[in-house]
Amino acid sequence: MATSSNPIITFYDILLDPAAFPISPNPWKTRYALNFAKVPYRTTWVPLSAVAETRNSLQLPANRKHLDGSDFPTLPIIRDPLAAMTSENEVIVGDSFDIALHLQKTYLSPSSPSKLSPDAGKQRQLFPAEGNGTVALHRAFNAFVDQLFSQHGALLAGFYMPLDPRTADSDKASFVRRIPGVTKWEDLEIPRGSEVRKKMLAEFESALDTKLGPCFPSSATGDEGKGTHGSGPFMDGRQEPMYADFIVGGWLQFMRGCLPEWEEMRNNWSNGKWGRLLDALEPWADVDGRDGVAPARR
Amino acid sequence: MATSSNPIITFYDILLDPAAFPISPNPWKTRYALNFAKVPYRTTWVPLSAVAETRNSLQLPANRKHLDGSDFPTLPIIRDPLAAMTSENEVIVGDSFDIALHLQKTYLSPSSPSKLSPDAGKQRQLFPAEGNGTVALHRAFNAFVDQLFSQHGALLAGFYMPLDPRTADSDKASFVRRIPGVTKWEDLEIPRGSEVRKKMLAEFESALDTKLGPCFPSSATGDEGKGTHGSGPFMDGRQEPMYADFIVGGWLQFMRGCLPEWEEMRNNWSNGKWGRLLDALEPWADVDGRDGVAPARR
Repeated sequence: MATSSNPIITFYDILLDPAAFPISPNPWKTRYALNFAKVPYRTTWVPLSAVAETRNSLQLPANRKHLDGSDFPTLPIIRDPLAAMTSENEVIVGDSFDIALHLQKTYLSPSSPSKLSPDAGKQRQLFPAEGNGTVALHRAFNAFVDQLFSQHGALLAGFYMPLDPRTADSDKASFVRRIPGVTKWEDLEIPRGSEVRKKMLAEFESALDTKLGPCFPSSATGDEGKGTHGSGPFMDGRQEPMYADFIVGGWLQFMRGCLPEWEEMRNNWSNGKWGRLLDALEPWADVDGRDGVAPARR
Repeated sequence: MATSSNPIITFYDILLDPAAFPISPNPWKTRYALNFAKVPYRTTWVPLSAVAETRNSLQLPANRKHLDGSDFPTLPIIRDPLAAMTSENEVIVGDSFDIALHLQKTYLSPSSPSKLSPDAGKQRQLFPAEGNGTVALHRAFNAFVDQLFSQHGALLAGFYMPLDPRTADSDKASFVRRIPGVTKWEDLEIPRGSEVRKKMLAEFESALDTKLGPCFPSSATGDEGKGTHGSGPFMDGRQEPMYADFIVGGWLQFMRGCLPEWEEMRNNWSNGKWGRLLDALEPWADVDGRDGVAPARR
């Protein structure tokens, strides 16, 4: 298979409950980007407990840190034989932001080799207007959005992750070990309907609304959005998404899959802004290799 | 004077100690942007205690909130008679980000009226490649950088602000009233050389390095920077600054003016990256209306 005459990209995503729709935010950013770039790929679904081993086998160091400072090996990874210089090689990239840069440079940039992408240099760009600071601005945007959603979302939504029932106990134990001050999984629960949860949800809603909200149009027509440059549903009112839209979309997929209050977030927070964005990203949300797993309703 | 035949923009900045170099981060962002746009302006220096009254007199609501949730009227403001439709009018803008957008739209945008700016549409842009999402990306970047520096800088540097000696006692009392749990100014001190201060400085250094550092070139030639698009000293290795560079520069001016450990931050944090950026911004750092106040050495 490795010597197939039609090589394609391998994309590694995390498998939790095989019956659930995928939720991992960073792999979602990559899935959106792969679909947007229209490159051929297949998804390899890696059980949570095998992620570290997968990174090791590809000689990729852990790319993140747990709260306790220990290594946190995670996904996505892509293996890209299309972009390799020789047929025996492949390009391996183990970080969602670096993957987006790789796809832009190899398949979308105006200076991409045309044999790889007949559309190269066309309107479709993950980082539009390269050379105008958009890569660095995206890099900061990625850190900003990760921080905003992790700070609130990890606590409010993470407890409800759809873990694989066959390995849930050891998966939970593995999480608990990494969180200082926590001794059992149940310590992580913030009970639904509790006052503390209501307060945290209100803070999450407000942080998203004030810090991220002004980047997106306020209504479907975009005419209320501050600083928008069009009437589209994406950042600044654009008609086409860019990688920043996929960064937020990745986190919205996580919230949709885990947050018990998702319907409220989707429909009512920021006057429905987040639900509208997720809907607008639907053309790039195809999930490969999960036949039989019906996408959850949005 | 209001009917002068050569109207110019009025820029309101905060006056602290008249003998000290200005330090307020948001007015600094605006000063950089005004100098960059090459528009004629004069600075009105407003004592801290008169800021609220100044906003009121211009019918501008408070634009920020104190930690206790109360209104926090602050500067900058600009009054721009050049951009007005009639000679009796003027455009008043009371927020640093909105001011940057106003300057871009009125004086720099490719679609600006050419009579206002002979350079309109030229290379010099606060938000390069308008229409490619750069305004929304900048908006998020501004929130991100404000958060990063406020979280650490307010505690480590704010105590050392060069207040006006004539009003320092009431200025301090005014700050203390707004901070929950604090009863006197001295409570805000984190003593130099203390273990707690060392720990906070290390966290500040690390947060800047990991979250903001990758947006800027690692060396003067930019060749070590990730994702850079040139060998210049600005974001992504660009040769010209954009508004994002001025956002960081505004906060660096605050640190230079207040943080006792500034020399360390300037020369050693992130291998000297922050000092190099501040130096590179020097061509747009002219301070108007402070004749006799020698700019502090950097």
